[in-house]
Amino acid sequence: MEIGLFGLGRMGGNICRRLLRAGHRCVVFNRSPEPVRLAVADGAVAAESLADLVRQLTPPRAVWVMLPAGRTTGQAVAELASLLQPGDTVIDGGNSFYKDDIRRARELAARDIAYLDVGTSGGIWGLERGYCLMIGGDATAVARLDPIFAALAPGLGTIPRTPGREGRDSRVEQGYLHCGPAGSGHFVKMIHNGIEYGLMQAYAEGFDILRNRASDALPEDERFVLDTADIAEVWRRGSVVSSWLLDLSAAALAEDVQLTAFSGEVQDSGEGRWTIQAAVEEAVPAPVLSASLYARFRSRTSHTFGDKLLSAMRFKFGGHVELPHRPGAES
Amino acid sequence: MEIGLFGLGRMGGNICRRLLRAGHRCVVFNRSPEPVRLAVADGAVAAESLADLVRQLTPPRAVWVMLPAGRTTGQAVAELASLLQPGDTVIDGGNSFYKDDIRRARELAARDIAYLDVGTSGGIWGLERGYCLMIGGDATAVARLDPIFAALAPGLGTIPRTPGREGRDSRVEQGYLHCGPAGSGHFVKMIHNGIEYGLMQAYAEGFDILRNRASDALPEDERFVLDTADIAEVWRRGSVVSSWLLDLSAAALAEDVQLTAFSGEVQDSGEGRWTIQAAVEEAVPAPVLSASLYARFRSRTSHTFGDKLLSAMRFKFGGHVELPHRPGAES
Amino acid sequence: MEIGLFGLGRMGGNICRRLLRAGHRCVVFNRSPEPVRLAVADGAVAAESLADLVRQLTPPRAVWVMLPAGRTTGQAVAELASLLQPGDTVIDGGNSFYKDDIRRARELAARDIAYLDVGTSGGIWGLERGYCLMIGGDATAVARLDPIFAALAPGLGTIPRTPGREGRDSRVEQGYLHCGPAGSGHFVKMIHNGIEYGLMQAYAEGFDILRNRASDALPEDERFVLDTADIAEVWRRGSVVSSWLLDLSAAALAEDVQLTAFSGEVQDSGEGRWTIQAAVEEAVPAPVLSASLYARFRSRTSHTFGDKLLSAMRFKFGGHVELPHRPGAES
Amino acid sequence: MEIGLFGLGRMGGNICRRLLRAGHRCVVFNRSPEPVRLAVADGAVAAESLADLVRQLTPPRAVWVMLPAGRTTGQAVAELASLLQPGDTVIDGGNSFYKDDIRRARELAARDIAYLDVGTSGGIWGLERGYCLMIGGDATAVARLDPIFAALAPGLGTIPRTPGREGRDSRVEQGYLHCGPAGSGHFVKMIHNGIEYGLMQAYAEGFDILRNRASDALPEDERFVLDTADIAEVWRRGSVVSSWLLDLSAAALAEDVQLTAFSGEVQDSGEGRWTIQAAVEEAVPAPVLSASLYARFRSRTSHTFGDKLLSAMRFKFGGHVELPHRPGAES
Repeated sequence: MEIGLFGLGRMGGNICRRLLRAGHRCVVFNRSPEPVRLAVADGAVAAESLADLVRQLTPPRAVWVMLPAGRTTGQAVAELASLLQPGDTVIDGGNSFYKDDIRRARELAARDIAYLDVGTSGGIWGLERGYCLMIGGDATAVARLDPIFAALAPGLGTIPRTPGREGRDSRVEQGYLHCGPAGSGHFVKMIHNGIEYGLMQAYAEGFDILRNRASDALPEDERFVLDTADIAEVWRRGSVVSSWLLDLSAAALAEDVQLTAFSGEVQDSGEGRWTIQAAVEEAVPAPVLSASLYARFRSRTSHTFGDKLLSAMRFKFGGHVELPHRPGAES
Repeated sequence: MEIGLFGLGRMGGNICRRLLRAGHRCVVFNRSPEPVRLAVADGAVAAESLADLVRQLTPPRAVWVMLPAGRTTGQAVAELASLLQPGDTVIDGGNSFYKDDIRRARELAARDIAYLDVGTSGGIWGLERGYCLMIGGDATAVARLDPIFAALAPGLGTIPRTPGREGRDSRVEQGYLHCGPAGSGHFVKMIHNGIEYGLMQAYAEGFDILRNRASDALPEDERFVLDTADIAEVWRRGSVVSSWLLDLSAAALAEDVQLTAFSGEVQDSGEGRWTIQAAVEEAVPAPVLSASLYARFRSRTSHTFGDKLLSAMRFKFGGHVELPHRPGAES
Repeated sequence: MEIGLFGLGRMGGNICRRLLRAGHRCVVFNRSPEPVRLAVADGAVAAESLADLVRQLTPPRAVWVMLPAGRTTGQAVAELASLLQPGDTVIDGGNSFYKDDIRRARELAARDIAYLDVGTSGGIWGLERGYCLMIGGDATAVARLDPIFAALAPGLGTIPRTPGREGRDSRVEQGYLHCGPAGSGHFVKMIHNGIEYGLMQAYAEGFDILRNRASDALPEDERFVLDTADIAEVWRRGSVVSSWLLDLSAAALAEDVQLTAFSGEVQDSGEGRWTIQAAVEEAVPAPVLSASLYARFRSRTSHTFGDKLLSAMRFKFGGHVELPHRPGAES
Repeated sequence: MEIGLFGLGRMGGNICRRLLRAGHRCVVFNRSPEPVRLAVADGAVAAESLADLVRQLTPPRAVWVMLPAGRTTGQAVAELASLLQPGDTVIDGGNSFYKDDIRRARELAARDIAYLDVGTSGGIWGLERGYCLMIGGDATAVARLDPIFAALAPGLGTIPRTPGREGRDSRVEQGYLHCGPAGSGHFVKMIHNGIEYGLMQAYAEGFDILRNRASDALPEDERFVLDTADIAEVWRRGSVVSSWLLDLSAAALAEDVQLTAFSGEVQDSGEGRWTIQAAVEEAVPAPVLSASLYARFRSRTSHTFGDKLLSAMRFKFGGHVELPHRPGAES
């Protein structure tokens, strides 16, 4: 079938390519021209503006917006709303805040335009592996666009089927899920990312303890010099902690067991923060997901004001003078 | 080759079976007779005591001890030490504390008996899937027993090879690793379990937030009734959080999305606790692994004394009277 | 001087009383009549409505709103805005969200009415001890109302002066602080409450460990039966952990060392939650403040869905069956 | 009465001084001679060795050992055990591990020598303010040495008495407590320090959030430039978070609101670590006390290996390249 695509960055470009490979017609627009040229070389149809993109699609139209930042997405959706007709559909495949989705869907529904929020996981591997899609919004629009979602999703592949799923929605096993009303797709994707932070931090702490077992602060007969690359590799087979993130860790450690290319400053994005906000709203304890987010905050600062205050208190009550800063020290 | 096996519980029985299938000779002993009878039916040779087991093996002997609790393992190793000869090997495949291994290995080395500590992951799936083995101790003994380890490990299977491992120890890709000197096998297994707790808790918190999104304490248009069974399933394909633990979660939720069979009281074992102790010894921050352990502690108590003290303070400073206990309430 | 007071609950009633004792004229209104009658008995002037309250004050008026919930406060401020004149002042002494303050102040400024947000700490002790006041908003209005704030604040009292404060704003030592523009008063109060949660939880955990030292799960010679009432008391004198919250704990434990009157279900209020939100917005790690909030969430639920999922995973990988629920068990 | 004192460091020297002021006879020994000379100037009697110190005391003797490190204390206790007679008492006033106390007390009991472990809080302020004493060991020895403990403790002072303590052990209100058998004194002191870490970290996080409210990463109308020195001061009066640690914070911030003298690297000592170990042994959740310890660990390292692994995973799944290290950045 046919789809418009606005935003051909790292994610959008690959989504376009995967849809083209599946035989779909893609009309594409991007603020900078180079990605459009590349997409056209792969078989896409170029548009010169959002208006032009809308013009080149046959109703009922569907336009997939794939932009990095929340604000730009909001503007794009608003612009599309003014260009589209009743019966058309806007899809936000980015990482929008689910409360923004709820509002936008309501606004577009007033003009009889459907709005779908599609959480899209898979990163740079999605082109080959397929994307895991978490979809929120109107069921009719979701059904109509099924060929698009089916083409993007990974499909059954070699992953064994879960027993007990006979008679359940078969799309799920293909790797795409209609989660519920508007906002629910990005909500589920948000929690996915929150969990992702937690999983990553669990591995990070474990490997940190393994690596520091060689520390000469420990009694000599309790020290071990452990090969974290080999440990990551052996855990990939038959252990309880095997996962895709472990596969990636094993690959990174096989390349360089010191990970010297990485500064240790870890970014975070909205989903991790919103996950904590959702937990607090629901009064659900989320200590692991919070700790994971805080570890990232902490990784980006050399010393907090709070740390200094701790030292100041220690000095005041015990006369303790903290050791001077040793630059470059690493645990 | 030939091996003695003491302890035919859930783990030991399957280890015996997997070794027999691979054509190894297993001389087995167990405190209660029934598991011995079952093993003999599968092709094992019965022994009536540890002494009898040692008698039926040809030097250099190897005896695999597979007992649940630390104390019993210590006694068994001591008894074996008095029965075995220089050149023999004792293997502890249970979940011993690595500092006990270090001590035991030193004691046995004085009698020229090798001691290997083998962390064994795989649970009830190991018989078919194979066991991930983390081995500590003398390299000569490890090399001599290679056929045993190779038979127990999963082998390459269908799991893709990690790029960049060319020229590295090929046993690792088969699923078994010689980690280092005595104690290091159980140390690595201990951290494996610590990470396991963290991974499990990350999923637990995420699914808790998903499920509580239907709470009527939330604004009506921000509530979602989400199907956690479908969400677990869709994340198995193409998402960043795919893992074996997610596979198991998806299976459990497909059976019963309410998980009514489970009380919510979660046990913990030594490894999770020792992991925190190791982190503290090394001065490595491990907030996620600690939080995971604490969540299990907390799950087994209805109210802590600490909680009551919080209420008492609140009453004293603000006159706040806490609501009475609502039995059966669940987040 | 003269002030209007809307809301005569636990806090508002005592604020009125303390102002009357200092010789100020208080015109009071409350939705239910009984608190008004009590205040009149103490010397206040009754009003029959907000309009009546405004009528009985001489411009430039000041009306202190002291209501428990956010929504009601918003309505009251809006109603007052329609009744007051340019040059008047509205004071919100409750626990409003600081972003609501910022918005309200902007709205009232458009009509030339000042809006002050006053975080008020002291609980039921404030009548005698005085209230610690954290004030946000227009400096002119703050200066004009100084006699009110001075009357409510504790004053220097017997608390030793901090060296190095010579030449600094002397109001601070009296117990009231103009923190900055609108919203900053409630922001500082919010963080005060966040810290309060953390302090309380630190004591709660410590006393929990003390009390559980008698557990028969411990080796016999490492068990202690400790008297937590005496320990709280001794720490009040000369120790590093002495504090007002410890004073209250000592009093509660002296009454009943088992704290049997308290269920262990601990409520939380907006400030604790907003503190985490603020930390996340600022990318400041706040593990202790978060853990404190989560402990309260957890105290109000008997088992989480997450706990059940942990058990389900354990059952799936290891065949572990968790022990049945023991009602009433307490750590 | 009379006491021997071994160890005249920061703590021991002041303890000696306070005992002398109370009219007690102190026979003192120290490895380096200078502190002995100072103590003699204050009225102490010098000893040239432990043997000499024992010789100059009349049975039943009491020797207070006040040494910083665990190992040295063990040696000193052993040496004293060989010099003392049945009926004598050894007091360990340092920060020993309570399990060492239990063992030492058992060893000394075999020779009919009493062993008391005395947790001593008060830091450099103890000389004037008095020391809060937490005493473990034989009740007879504790009773015999009551004048010593009474002299060191702060006494009632100006701190209000806790209602409901009539008829209870009056020593507690004087600031010293016989907690229970050997080890219990240091156990209670250990938990005191664990709580201390938690309290300090709660303030640290709160002030960090206050200070970062000026960050230009926030929306302009939600930024505040807050004076943390004034806030600490105002909270000292009438607020719920008033405490001695807050008094010290206010003093430090009044001197320099930037705390520039402090590097932000925060040391930790055994008690904080052993507190976590005790919590884990007892299966008591202690998230706040753990988080406080981890914050100190983290403050002493610029980047963890775990952080690098997080970045490595992010690069592998999403192609994310982390920003380069900005030296000196501070939250």
